Amino acid sequence: MEVCLFEPEIAQNAGTIARLCACFGVNLNIIEPASFVIDSKAFKRAGMDYLDKLDINLHDSFQAFRKQYNGRLVLLDVKATLPYYDLKYKPTDCIIFGKESTGVPDDIYELCDEKVLIPMVKNVRSLNVAISAAIGLSEAVRQIKNL
Amino acid sequence: MEVCLFEPEIAQNAGTIARLCACFGVNLNIIEPASFVIDSKAFKRAGMDYLDKLDINLHDSFQAFRKQYNGRLVLLDVKATLPYYDLKYKPTDCIIFGKESTGVPDDIYELCDEKVLIPMVKNVRSLNVAISAAIGLSEAVRQIKNL
Repeated sequence: MEVCLFEPEIAQNAGTIARLCACFGVNLNIIEPASFVIDSKAFKRAGMDYLDKLDINLHDSFQAFRKQYNGRLVLLDVKATLPYYDLKYKPTDCIIFGKESTGVPDDIYELCDEKVLIPMVKNVRSLNVAISAAIGLSEAVRQIKNL
Repeated sequence: MEVCLFEPEIAQNAGTIARLCACFGVNLNIIEPASFVIDSKAFKRAGMDYLDKLDINLHDSFQAFRKQYNGRLVLLDVKATLPYYDLKYKPTDCIIFGKESTGVPDDIYELCDEKVLIPMVKNVRSLNVAISAAIGLSEAVRQIKNL
């Protein structure tokens, strides 16, 4: 199980997701450019002392990551229609999250193998990306009983 | 379904949880004292424009809340042994979270009806409370198909 952040914009969100990945024992991939320095104080503060407990793999582009990763890419996106809990996850899945402001571009959306969303009440916009990551990753981990 | 924060210490966590509650259509209870002003800028910044979409109920003490709330209190706590996904949730449950630094005191732990934990890899300490809330609440909502 892997997690991937596509061009993340907010250091604190990425650091919080890094801590989440460390607690669940999964690797974190970051597709650059990020809008912050991966080694920045804000990233480290949110990641705390968990950052040395996980592998963070940096990738130059989505295409570079896609070539290197052989498992399914499961995109969590508000445009999807399948609830995240209705997908059957595999241990080789990578759950990928778009950037905070605009998600992923249409071409990358199409290149992901599965697209799922978190059902929400009407007339609200969206969840924070770290919160979404927690919801999506924990469901995948629950299903494959990784822990 | 309700969420309750016991004497929360960090405004940003509480604001993020408020946004989560708004997206899932559940009420938020806060047991005072909080270590921040509920109306503070940091709380509002994390809660964004979601704060006017949910009811936030303030309570003077755990005892006052316990008297008023008739459903089960499900405590999410690292001291528990039952994985959070092995509990069968009810629509009348309230999921309660302790304070960031020390959780809940022993007497309050005993007064909660169910205690569950989020399984994690060994040798890591804990998840951020907003991340834990996302994991616990989303599983309860998934089970009762609230959305």
